[in-house]
Amino acid sequence: MKPDGGSLIGFGSSGIGGTTFKAFDPARDVALEPSFLSAATEDVERAVQLAADAAPVWAKLPGPARQKFLGAISEKLEARSAELVARAMQETGLPEARLKGEVARAAGQLRLYGEAAARGDWLDARIETAQPDRKPLPKPDHRSMFRAIGPVVVFGSSNFPFAYSVAGGDTASAFAAGCPVIVKAHPAHPGTSELVGRLILHAVRECGLPEGTFSLLFDAGFEVGQALVQHPLARAVGFTGSLKGGRALADLAAARPEPIPVYAEMGSVNPVFILPGAIAERAAALVEGLYTSAMVAVGQFCTNPGLIVLQRSPAAEQLVKDMAARLAATSEGVMLTPGIWRNFRKAIEARARMAGVAPVGASLLATGPQSRASSLPQNTAAPVWFETGAQEFLGNHALSEEIFGPSSLVIWCKDRVEMLAVAQELEGSLTASLHAGATEAKEQGPLVEMLAAKAGRLIFNGYPTGLEVSPAIVHGGPYPATSDGGRSTSVGTRSLNRWGRLICYQSFADELLPPELQNANPLGLRRLVNGEWRNDPI
Amino acid sequence: MKPDGGSLIGFGSSGIGGTTFKAFDPARDVALEPSFLSAATEDVERAVQLAADAAPVWAKLPGPARQKFLGAISEKLEARSAELVARAMQETGLPEARLKGEVARAAGQLRLYGEAAARGDWLDARIETAQPDRKPLPKPDHRSMFRAIGPVVVFGSSNFPFAYSVAGGDTASAFAAGCPVIVKAHPAHPGTSELVGRLILHAVRECGLPEGTFSLLFDAGFEVGQALVQHPLARAVGFTGSLKGGRALADLAAARPEPIPVYAEMGSVNPVFILPGAIAERAAALVEGLYTSAMVAVGQFCTNPGLIVLQRSPAAEQLVKDMAARLAATSEGVMLTPGIWRNFRKAIEARARMAGVAPVGASLLATGPQSRASSLPQNTAAPVWFETGAQEFLGNHALSEEIFGPSSLVIWCKDRVEMLAVAQELEGSLTASLHAGATEAKEQGPLVEMLAAKAGRLIFNGYPTGLEVSPAIVHGGPYPATSDGGRSTSVGTRSLNRWGRLICYQSFADELLPPELQNANPLGLRRLVNGEWRNDPI
Repeated sequence: MKPDGGSLIGFGSSGIGGTTFKAFDPARDVALEPSFLSAATEDVERAVQLAADAAPVWAKLPGPARQKFLGAISEKLEARSAELVARAMQETGLPEARLKGEVARAAGQLRLYGEAAARGDWLDARIETAQPDRKPLPKPDHRSMFRAIGPVVVFGSSNFPFAYSVAGGDTASAFAAGCPVIVKAHPAHPGTSELVGRLILHAVRECGLPEGTFSLLFDAGFEVGQALVQHPLARAVGFTGSLKGGRALADLAAARPEPIPVYAEMGSVNPVFILPGAIAERAAALVEGLYTSAMVAVGQFCTNPGLIVLQRSPAAEQLVKDMAARLAATSEGVMLTPGIWRNFRKAIEARARMAGVAPVGASLLATGPQSRASSLPQNTAAPVWFETGAQEFLGNHALSEEIFGPSSLVIWCKDRVEMLAVAQELEGSLTASLHAGATEAKEQGPLVEMLAAKAGRLIFNGYPTGLEVSPAIVHGGPYPATSDGGRSTSVGTRSLNRWGRLICYQSFADELLPPELQNANPLGLRRLVNGEWRNDPI
Repeated sequence: MKPDGGSLIGFGSSGIGGTTFKAFDPARDVALEPSFLSAATEDVERAVQLAADAAPVWAKLPGPARQKFLGAISEKLEARSAELVARAMQETGLPEARLKGEVARAAGQLRLYGEAAARGDWLDARIETAQPDRKPLPKPDHRSMFRAIGPVVVFGSSNFPFAYSVAGGDTASAFAAGCPVIVKAHPAHPGTSELVGRLILHAVRECGLPEGTFSLLFDAGFEVGQALVQHPLARAVGFTGSLKGGRALADLAAARPEPIPVYAEMGSVNPVFILPGAIAERAAALVEGLYTSAMVAVGQFCTNPGLIVLQRSPAAEQLVKDMAARLAATSEGVMLTPGIWRNFRKAIEARARMAGVAPVGASLLATGPQSRASSLPQNTAAPVWFETGAQEFLGNHALSEEIFGPSSLVIWCKDRVEMLAVAQELEGSLTASLHAGATEAKEQGPLVEMLAAKAGRLIFNGYPTGLEVSPAIVHGGPYPATSDGGRSTSVGTRSLNRWGRLICYQSFADELLPPELQNANPLGLRRLVNGEWRNDPI
């Protein structure tokens, strides 16, 4: 199984194409074969039209059929894991074990969302039966639920080539909700994208689903993505990536003649508040936990802990010193793309120049962080942390900005009041973590309440990386963590609801209703019937 | 109880104010006392800041406390119904019986949403308990739910001075979800707005809720509304009104540094498809039902049936002739405001000039609809319907636009294929209705499926006006019916979810969790615990 470089449009193996580009191996600093054809305008048009044609068939596909399809994709991913991982290693510089785990995670996610589709809780099916004799007016029969919104455009992320890319969370949840999907492949791993896309197409044919269920378009630039978001037949957009990219797409979608929703998971600094009691109880474990969380995947996780908020004390200073020693002893790691690497370097150089900001453990890095950075091989980065005071942080908005890569900012507070002031000024994040000692934990109500207004997931005595894919998880948060202000999650079974809209049937004969709302409840759904949740027929 | 003309800002009885304006009695064509002060910039600032201060208190207020507050408002509305209705009659020209009914509807809505707040289903509370021994990684405890998004800005509608204005659906659902509310009063009924606003403030004091729970701001123009939507502390917007107004606010909100959601219920043509079998079975009932639905409130309902799609036949022609006779015999009615009346006249004059469009029953209106319109008293309108062919409709987008007032457009199709073509080309609507005879009903699957992609509520053998406020209702739909593409409803208990965002607690000690997620389940909520919906403690 080797990529051949053409977009996958419906059952056609390749589009017309335009300019070409190649994948890049960041570890070896070389381009990879083959060349990939950027999709042409006609390719975009054909992919979206095919998806729109498939949409009504998909909207009517019962949950169990969707589950079968998602199961078929997950099996194929697992069966071809070795080949997929081999290509992904070249394209991302990520290690084999991590990528193997990620394929398994993507497969598990497809199965979980398939179960959610079959179970149908997300439909929120509700029935109020008629009361023809009600006074003063008869009450009509009303039956309502979420239904698939239509063709969904997905932009995969660069940092999760499996779990949040072609067959990742957005695609899996959109299929589970009954929507055809058009993926704009991330140009950082086009070969991996094509291989995964072909597996999805095999599953489409195997399950007898319509052409247009899935397409995959390549583009080295932004034109194809913009055309997809602006296409009149596109109904919603999923995106995982940078704040700049996500906001640009959200702005495009909001300016359409008919605006459509964009679910963009974007920038997040994931603040970690460490209280004195936690340090007193388990300083060594804190250094170890925080270090591990911050270093995973060379700091290129959306849940990377980017702000560490501490109250100044000898113990806290020792903790940061111990961290500095760990950081200084850390070998460099390969970043995902030369572009990400360049942006990281620019960002740390800019931060190093800011007033009131100093490198953490500069004394351990004889020539300073920039110098060490300059001496590293192309596309690699070593951790560079900074420290600043609460007042400096509060007075300089640039310090609130995410640096994508292995850099975190320690914020020193002189007391608890300053800690609360920092919490109050935080922008939206995917997560916020709080470490407290046994005796002080109970007093943290106000801080917890403040953080609850700022993040989608609050973590107590834990670390932000390592995301459970479950019915209860929330991966979202106030802007700029997401473009929708944290009303939805891009991970977990609740993510299906992003791809639905509400529909209500009034006074319909049973045989004209979708099966989900029929009296016999043929799919065995949980439904709110006259105020009571029930799984049985009515 | 008389209005005194000042904005209500927190517990302050009046703002600083700027220019003044008066309410207008459209039936008598005169201005009404007193003068109302448009809110000043400082007034807006103070109202939003107070709401932001109240927001954390509100977010923690348990459902039953919210229910008590909503109940107090509903009681006050009912107790003062006569005074409220007296003022509203002057300001809107609507008849007493209708307004009395609307006060009752608003009160009922407040109670229903209060019950929903206490019941807490909308929270979608979910718990996955920890599995510390899971391999390869331990599973942490995750507990999540919707929580209040923060200060909500509400723009009341002109056509429902009680049910969709100051204490209407948006306000009631936002309070029920735990959000402070700032209402921008509709300038068409400022006196009614102030009286209702004062009742809400009485309830705020009575229930011991914080200042900033509710404010009401006046403005004759757009500045105050724009400032509210752009205020950094505003978190969401509810709007009921015109497409132009709703879209302008949605665009403003999308362009903010931190975009916020706008739930605007805007334009809707509410197509009604009448199949031959329905006419054969019950032509007289159809004329009566359609006429009643189209004439209610002088056609000024968002669910007014604006497009009537028919297959040409002698029986269908007779139905339209019978309708024309009813229309010609209809007395004029007072429209809500001089502005709405002028827009209605402009719209019917423009439509009358369009190629391929003719007035329905021109022969019955000796001098044509425009002439009759010109001869009517100021601010009044008589029904003016038009007819056109399917091809003309498909070729002229202006015929898809809503005319707010007593005008509908009959679309003649030569066959079923043309009917489907019209259905396919429809823009989004709040409702779509289908009338079929007993034998042809079963064959309507394709048409029903097509309409399901176009509207939030499908009605079988019924009429779009008359909206049940219930757990199963959907009042929403694809753009331009709403600004959010039909993902939410502005009526019914599901409307609470517009004002929530998701929050997840990971590994929190029970006492630091909100009561909704604590083990003991002190509020008796229905929660998804390890995959099972339960109401009990865990």
